Amino acid sequence: MDPRHAPLFEPIRVGPKTFRNRFYVAPHCSGLGVEYPGAQAYLRGMRAEGGWAAVNTEYCAVDPESDDSPWVQARLLDERDEANLRLMVERVHEFDALAGVQLVYMGADHTGYVTRLPAGGPSQVASAMSGHSCYAMDKSDIRRIQQSYVAAAIRARNVGFDLIQVAAREGFSLPLQFLWRYWNHRTDEYGGSLENRTRFWRETLEQVREAVGDDCAIVAGFCLDSFNDTSDRAFKVSDDGVGVVELLDDIVDLWDMQVGHLEDDVSSSRFFEPFWQRGYIEQVRPYAKKPIAAVGRFTDPELMARAVGDGVIDIIGAARPAISDPFIPIKIQEGRAEDIRECIGCNMCVSRFNNGGGRIVCTQNATVGEEYRRGWHPERFNTSDRAEEPILIIGAGPAGMECARVLGERGFEAVHLAEADAEIGGHVNWVSQLPGLRTWRRVVEYREAQLAKMSNVTVLTGKHFDLEDVLDYGASTVIVATGASWDRTGTSPLTHVPVAGADAYPTMVFTPEDVMLEKRAVDADRVLVYDCDGYFMGSSLAQKLAIEGKKVTLVTPADQVGSYLFHTDEGGHVMHALLDLGVELVTSHTLDGIEPGTVTGHNVYHSAKEISWSVDAVVLVTQRRSRNDLYEQLTAAPDRLRSAEINQVLRIGDCVEPRVIAEAVFDGHRLGREIDTPDPATPLPFIREQRILGWREEDYDGILRHVLPLTPVSRTSLR
Amino acid sequence: MDPRHAPLFEPIRVGPKTFRNRFYVAPHCSGLGVEYPGAQAYLRGMRAEGGWAAVNTEYCAVDPESDDSPWVQARLLDERDEANLRLMVERVHEFDALAGVQLVYMGADHTGYVTRLPAGGPSQVASAMSGHSCYAMDKSDIRRIQQSYVAAAIRARNVGFDLIQVAAREGFSLPLQFLWRYWNHRTDEYGGSLENRTRFWRETLEQVREAVGDDCAIVAGFCLDSFNDTSDRAFKVSDDGVGVVELLDDIVDLWDMQVGHLEDDVSSSRFFEPFWQRGYIEQVRPYAKKPIAAVGRFTDPELMARAVGDGVIDIIGAARPAISDPFIPIKIQEGRAEDIRECIGCNMCVSRFNNGGGRIVCTQNATVGEEYRRGWHPERFNTSDRAEEPILIIGAGPAGMECARVLGERGFEAVHLAEADAEIGGHVNWVSQLPGLRTWRRVVEYREAQLAKMSNVTVLTGKHFDLEDVLDYGASTVIVATGASWDRTGTSPLTHVPVAGADAYPTMVFTPEDVMLEKRAVDADRVLVYDCDGYFMGSSLAQKLAIEGKKVTLVTPADQVGSYLFHTDEGGHVMHALLDLGVELVTSHTLDGIEPGTVTGHNVYHSAKEISWSVDAVVLVTQRRSRNDLYEQLTAAPDRLRSAEINQVLRIGDCVEPRVIAEAVFDGHRLGREIDTPDPATPLPFIREQRILGWREEDYDGILRHVLPLTPVSRTSLR
Repeated sequence: MDPRHAPLFEPIRVGPKTFRNRFYVAPHCSGLGVEYPGAQAYLRGMRAEGGWAAVNTEYCAVDPESDDSPWVQARLLDERDEANLRLMVERVHEFDALAGVQLVYMGADHTGYVTRLPAGGPSQVASAMSGHSCYAMDKSDIRRIQQSYVAAAIRARNVGFDLIQVAAREGFSLPLQFLWRYWNHRTDEYGGSLENRTRFWRETLEQVREAVGDDCAIVAGFCLDSFNDTSDRAFKVSDDGVGVVELLDDIVDLWDMQVGHLEDDVSSSRFFEPFWQRGYIEQVRPYAKKPIAAVGRFTDPELMARAVGDGVIDIIGAARPAISDPFIPIKIQEGRAEDIRECIGCNMCVSRFNNGGGRIVCTQNATVGEEYRRGWHPERFNTSDRAEEPILIIGAGPAGMECARVLGERGFEAVHLAEADAEIGGHVNWVSQLPGLRTWRRVVEYREAQLAKMSNVTVLTGKHFDLEDVLDYGASTVIVATGASWDRTGTSPLTHVPVAGADAYPTMVFTPEDVMLEKRAVDADRVLVYDCDGYFMGSSLAQKLAIEGKKVTLVTPADQVGSYLFHTDEGGHVMHALLDLGVELVTSHTLDGIEPGTVTGHNVYHSAKEISWSVDAVVLVTQRRSRNDLYEQLTAAPDRLRSAEINQVLRIGDCVEPRVIAEAVFDGHRLGREIDTPDPATPLPFIREQRILGWREEDYDGILRHVLPLTPVSRTSLR
Repeated sequence: MDPRHAPLFEPIRVGPKTFRNRFYVAPHCSGLGVEYPGAQAYLRGMRAEGGWAAVNTEYCAVDPESDDSPWVQARLLDERDEANLRLMVERVHEFDALAGVQLVYMGADHTGYVTRLPAGGPSQVASAMSGHSCYAMDKSDIRRIQQSYVAAAIRARNVGFDLIQVAAREGFSLPLQFLWRYWNHRTDEYGGSLENRTRFWRETLEQVREAVGDDCAIVAGFCLDSFNDTSDRAFKVSDDGVGVVELLDDIVDLWDMQVGHLEDDVSSSRFFEPFWQRGYIEQVRPYAKKPIAAVGRFTDPELMARAVGDGVIDIIGAARPAISDPFIPIKIQEGRAEDIRECIGCNMCVSRFNNGGGRIVCTQNATVGEEYRRGWHPERFNTSDRAEEPILIIGAGPAGMECARVLGERGFEAVHLAEADAEIGGHVNWVSQLPGLRTWRRVVEYREAQLAKMSNVTVLTGKHFDLEDVLDYGASTVIVATGASWDRTGTSPLTHVPVAGADAYPTMVFTPEDVMLEKRAVDADRVLVYDCDGYFMGSSLAQKLAIEGKKVTLVTPADQVGSYLFHTDEGGHVMHALLDLGVELVTSHTLDGIEPGTVTGHNVYHSAKEISWSVDAVVLVTQRRSRNDLYEQLTAAPDRLRSAEINQVLRIGDCVEPRVIAEAVFDGHRLGREIDTPDPATPLPFIREQRILGWREEDYDGILRHVLPLTPVSRTSLR
């Protein structure tokens, strides 16, 4: 280990518990909750195995009124929930880590869609997040909900949790709603002064401590500052934050601190530097005798060591970095920090959850969420009895690189990764040159470094492979990963046909590749960016062109600019940036025609509502098309494949279906894991966790159990 | 039975099966799928008990590539799915109905979020619905997916399904994507001419028939016309629709026809009349020898009898009417059509599903989706051993009316429902006067008619109850249902504080009640409607005022006008109507101040981007506030309650938390069902269906089974 990193491995006392080191996986959503108990246990347990001292659940409801469905919480309401969370605790304990749970009651942020219950809040105000309101809690409601916290804490203790967090954090927790004047308009002893507004949280913490405090450490999850809030009801670290720490430091064992709302907390690398929260935490540090943990998208051990060494925080909190690489602590400890698979801060992880409560994924770590249901381990790979068969991968974008890496890890003796460009990386190389996306290059850098270490993987760059080249190469397996290109005709998900004039005036029309890869100059003052894609590309190009001084109009048929960016918690920041740059934003409009100097369109909800723009260039961000020619040529020539002794031709990534980088990486990873199954094009089945009528628990995963190569399901929890 | 309705009860042959009458529950989403097999079975089974001849599932995936998660489909991919759907079939058969399944493969409309697979389509075009793309299917892909249809059909047959639908319907089915030029750009024998574009569906139907056609009827779910589509790639009933029927009539047993896209098919009563599809179906009728079923939001037996009597259709399809009242057929048969709880066409049923795959609810029928997990039957109610205790309900809005109805059904001897207004109905009375919402009055009319039949329920109108009145009345249970009012200050979910000037210039400021209930004249040419509510109220008032000739500007802090309307499949129609009326739409803006003649605001994403509007009146649709005074007065006086021999005071509906009508009705219903439990304020637990680690199936619902009063869980399916 680098001696500068040693302070990160000093144990620290947290109430009745001891952290073995300074690494703490903060609570974060997963889409698993208590609905997918196996996946939950193995996701969280993997971090314990990776060396973290403590590992948390996601937000965990203490009361049926705290119902956020279809968004998936954990729950500790009855013995069923205990049964399901117990396996997580066991998995975490198996690797000598501490297990934590984050107790919440959502108040007005609830939906009530499953329980169909109302929820209480300090005052009857509605939530901008849920759109729902609440009832104003009277004293008996306060006692009742505090009892729910206590009951959930006791269940947590009984299940074996070591850390019990009572959260006063952004977006979903009643103690915060009492703390903030924004939510709390009360005039009784629970409203008004800071001391009064802290009362609910203080009492709840005291009651939880009273119930379980000898057995568990009590964690205060605390939002220090309402951030970017200039109203006179803002919650400011300088007075409110400091005041709360002074009031409560005596009765908590650990502070888990964060700043701002959800889209600031899950701070996208496009807008936030790592540990941007430092200045806020420094203000409360003098008032906290108890240890402080905080997140900061920490991937760099130097930054971690500095944060701890300077005494700003005591414990490195992480959510996304642990998703991207559960083995960060062990890698630092073993002095191989260069092997860390660094989080790129793209927030794909949380986007599926935000989009209806879906399961966690990661751009960098294809195994996240797959630990249980597919038996995938991020650091361990099974060997193959067909390792001697030579494999050629055409295309070194995300899918190709990842597939080569996995095949390399699995010990295939001759893996050749061929790239037509001078560098590997595919479209990530130019995408990462868009404003704010520099960090995305880690997708390439991590794989480049790993591949360089593998003597069994050969990387060929600057070599375009056509059909004949492939047939001549001598591989028995060929994997096509040739990616996708942006459409040049304006064909979009909405219309499925070209925009009139797109082909007639080619000098006026640009694709993202024209601008970024070919560096074709957009020689025009007035530019229209037409975004039918709905993720980052349209707004990023608008941002880039506006920064370069163009007058930019961004037109989209959607009702939001880059609507998927609102799932990655980037939407608000993107909107601010575009408005700041003076980009004109036109939503709900589609393009009809392109002519020199003029683009015409109409409102998507009313074809008679026509509009035109005077512009000299149009950037079409409408959809991508797979570059699938090579695959089609190969599969159309079965005789020639046989003659060339090519046994199988497979394809992965965007050349199959253009998708986000996370899915391309997943596709490459999956094929790497399963290349030697009888039918590698068809994924092995995975364990679906659900009720199955009439089935016995031991048959639950049925035929699937035996295919899990490395992490057989623990039986210890099954009674 | 009314003899005019007799044709609706004539049996009809459908392939190898016979419908006992002409009532058919069309496939519709429920949010249950195979994830909640008990709820699925009892939801669908209830329609069989209610007299429908055939009952369908929702869309059911035939292949893992057809993954729409987190939106919940059914699935028939393995023996687990069979186990879970078998209970539905058994429940349907138990009541002598036929069970149907709708087989689908989503193509580009997929998400792939759970399986992480790509999906195929006729051509590589992206989906406006999912935002995802697909791979272009080659011949081997076509054969493979057809085999998936066949395998799922065989599973369906084995489970006991009687009707197997191969869907070519809007939004999610591969056969439609082959049929429509919009999706199908192929140049081989599967693209081009109508015959070629029909080939995929024909082959699939033939293969399914070959596999199971002696045991099951083969249903063609067919979208006749792409509706409101003026492009040259439109699919038109007059040629395409007719042509397909001619091509396929020989090989299907039943046509299940619909028109347009999802938001046309789930046609909101705000924009569509019942059976608006008639003119389309009449065009293909001459070419179909096989029976035709079609939906049309049929609630009126006269309309049904006419549709069948005229020979336009043979079978009455229904989704929403059956959700609102599963007992329509039996009620018509028994000559009590006036007891039908008519669907109001508000589409709340589908909105939860659209919003992330949530469970089905209904404004009219509080029991929908609760048949299994709470044991509720829409037509049967258990009696109480405390039926002699007099109950007073204050407030006859949706919650109060429904609670009185349930208590009346349960045989409580003295239920008094008191209403301050001259009529019962609460805010539904004026809400239903908004443009297009006339049908919503059925919420009142149904309950008014039912209550009028109950000798044990007394309705008192025009009587305001204050604290003293309640104490003097002689009830032992008092239920407060006093509703909510719109805020007059501009306090919104976003800011939680008033808009400056809202109180200073009261003549300029209007609430929805001012306009609709008090009929206060909006004496201004230029009106700004400020919608922070996000459901129907803002756009409805804008629509009304624009119809009256005002120049209307609708401002909302959301990125969509009435964003929840996009969950109710009304958003596009609302946008069209507002644009048609010339309403100026301003999204993503909040109001800062109101002054005579001027309203100021700013962009929610950038406070420096200020804006002002010259208007003379402002309608504030920001949030509602519970009218909770009476409840607070009552609960603050426990001694006086004791003296008055009032044992319990409860509250329901909007006076607890302002919610949608469906939730107010639910709240009243729930309390009526559980008024005599030891703690009626706290709902009885319900069965959550999920995997529970280590639990035995027979303990699965544990302590909950015994509380289900009327529909004990069938054991027959549990092996």
